[in-house]
Amino acid sequence: MAHERFSAEVYRSRLQRAQQLTGSAGLSALFITPGPDLRYLTGSRASTFERLTALVISPDRDPQVVVPRLELAALRESAVGELGLVVHDWVDGQDPYAIAVEAAGVSAGRYAVSDAAPALHTVPLAARFGSSPELATAVLRQLRMIKDDAEIDALRRAGAAIDRVHARVGEWLSAGRTEREVATDIEAAIVAEGHTGAEFIIVGSGPNGADPHHEVSDRVIEDGDVVVVDIGGPVEPGYNSDCTRTYCVGEPSGEIAGQYRVLEEAQRAAVAAVRPGVSAQQIDAAARDVLAQAGLVDKFVHRTGHGIGLSVHEEPYIVEGNDIELQVGMAFSVEPGIYFPGGWGARIEDIVVVTADGCESLNQRPHELKSV
Amino acid sequence: MAHERFSAEVYRSRLQRAQQLTGSAGLSALFITPGPDLRYLTGSRASTFERLTALVISPDRDPQVVVPRLELAALRESAVGELGLVVHDWVDGQDPYAIAVEAAGVSAGRYAVSDAAPALHTVPLAARFGSSPELATAVLRQLRMIKDDAEIDALRRAGAAIDRVHARVGEWLSAGRTEREVATDIEAAIVAEGHTGAEFIIVGSGPNGADPHHEVSDRVIEDGDVVVVDIGGPVEPGYNSDCTRTYCVGEPSGEIAGQYRVLEEAQRAAVAAVRPGVSAQQIDAAARDVLAQAGLVDKFVHRTGHGIGLSVHEEPYIVEGNDIELQVGMAFSVEPGIYFPGGWGARIEDIVVVTADGCESLNQRPHELKSV
Repeated sequence: MAHERFSAEVYRSRLQRAQQLTGSAGLSALFITPGPDLRYLTGSRASTFERLTALVISPDRDPQVVVPRLELAALRESAVGELGLVVHDWVDGQDPYAIAVEAAGVSAGRYAVSDAAPALHTVPLAARFGSSPELATAVLRQLRMIKDDAEIDALRRAGAAIDRVHARVGEWLSAGRTEREVATDIEAAIVAEGHTGAEFIIVGSGPNGADPHHEVSDRVIEDGDVVVVDIGGPVEPGYNSDCTRTYCVGEPSGEIAGQYRVLEEAQRAAVAAVRPGVSAQQIDAAARDVLAQAGLVDKFVHRTGHGIGLSVHEEPYIVEGNDIELQVGMAFSVEPGIYFPGGWGARIEDIVVVTADGCESLNQRPHELKSV
Repeated sequence: MAHERFSAEVYRSRLQRAQQLTGSAGLSALFITPGPDLRYLTGSRASTFERLTALVISPDRDPQVVVPRLELAALRESAVGELGLVVHDWVDGQDPYAIAVEAAGVSAGRYAVSDAAPALHTVPLAARFGSSPELATAVLRQLRMIKDDAEIDALRRAGAAIDRVHARVGEWLSAGRTEREVATDIEAAIVAEGHTGAEFIIVGSGPNGADPHHEVSDRVIEDGDVVVVDIGGPVEPGYNSDCTRTYCVGEPSGEIAGQYRVLEEAQRAAVAAVRPGVSAQQIDAAARDVLAQAGLVDKFVHRTGHGIGLSVHEEPYIVEGNDIELQVGMAFSVEPGIYFPGGWGARIEDIVVVTADGCESLNQRPHELKSV
């Protein structure tokens, strides 16, 4: 498949910074297996599982790649060739962990692996090092959390694309249809509006909306239902949208409308609190405080948000206990919700990017409880 | 989504055996995160990544489950509730690794994690134990490799479904169409014939067929092309098909036809060698010997096969160096291929199940180089 990626220079610069950070963290090597870290650093969308593919980053030598010979062709769409990285291909019967350790030039000391690295690979690597790995996130999040202009542009395109889908939800959402039928229409629109696919689709109607992680079901939507629609997916070169709006089939009761207005206010307050230097947990608190004043804080049963980029969920997490300071270029969701088990639920979610004096919202659809 | 699973009794029995094997392997605990091992043991299709979900198996206490509160609903389709397993749900801010270790009742000694467990979870677990994990595969493969009657039935249904797709490939494969167009038609048929989705689709035409891991491209298929079509996906409750046939657009040259006949013979010889007590590598050798006699062995650049079940690739691997003895109930692919870089490639793949006196093939389509 012909996927887009950034120019080789972008990956060259990322790799250099990763190398510097590896050294300054006192790590002898990073082993990056397929997943968002590998894509971030090389543009590779390799997805091998059982046979080891790894990017090896050491402070003192050029990055190298270990790859099954069968998967060499899949590397072609990455920047690995253009960057002239040394590639060690291996065939069944060889020990790829010996090759990886050789590529790193070390088999002792502190080393790190990507979050996604499966035990299938980290266990034999640990046996070679004689010690457990650390997580490469400690190094890589310093890069991945701060989006550059091209990344923000991709996130903006993703945001605009999912906004166009939400603008059309009224065409599909109506009493008598099942959540699944509505989701099928939404999925087609997610692709039609420019995503390479739908990554997730939540259509939570009536009591299903009270479960924040409900996906879709065969429940038939009824008149009067409040319906949570939380949708997103990647646009090239792999950056994700994620946007929630809540709809009402018909007119909401006065009580629901009132509680929903508190949620709107909570989401607005959290977005208004975003600026460089504020901590992630302060954004979470800003949303929670508004709900607390209305006696609704116990209905808000999840964190306020998550970073977004090549992964739908990545750092920084907007959650109590995370005192990381926001910096220009961080991109994350602000998505408080209120959930009444057995009754209904609502959530409002926008992606924001931190700017010098606040933030830019990448989603522009109105927040109101929209009647369809 | 309403997924099928086996009855709770099936999972109860698997869990009991896993528990016994954990004890006899001298392990203090297994931590099984989402993936095929968790599905095998509980019927759960959980796919959480960043928040820990884990089945904890200890020799001396009942299996327990650690799960984010947000994901409790997703457990409902598994057998966890019906089996009455203790479930520890946790919320953001709690330390799920402390909870997992508590559930195991140990935080020292040898322990193991599933192959798929990401470093995100194994690293903090290793910190609690003060040592690196082993792989739970050593225990679980003794269960997962030997399919019971219900599993073999599911694999049979998968095989029959993919056979029906291959029977129709001639409707779609023709000169002037791109590989991707053909793949789109095949994908629809994979679902229409009873799979829950397509797991992989390879349409390797002409020189693309010479790359065993080529997927699809926008190459326009030409008259005279040899085309490798390797396709599969799961049928409920999650067991996979995987079948390759090679087609020729028009009539093959005499040379191609001759080399293909050697491949047919190699595949037949490997299947004929399958019976209990023979080693996995002997099956590999059986295919390779036939190709060697015709001077084609260097064109066969991958192993002969892989186990199949809930995963498309699982143990036993049919590869040089694997001296595991075949047992009744093992299911795996037999798929030699020949590859001429820049020219063409061919592969023939059937899934077989070991029986008392040989094997049953789950794919029934003719092996000939079929002209379309």
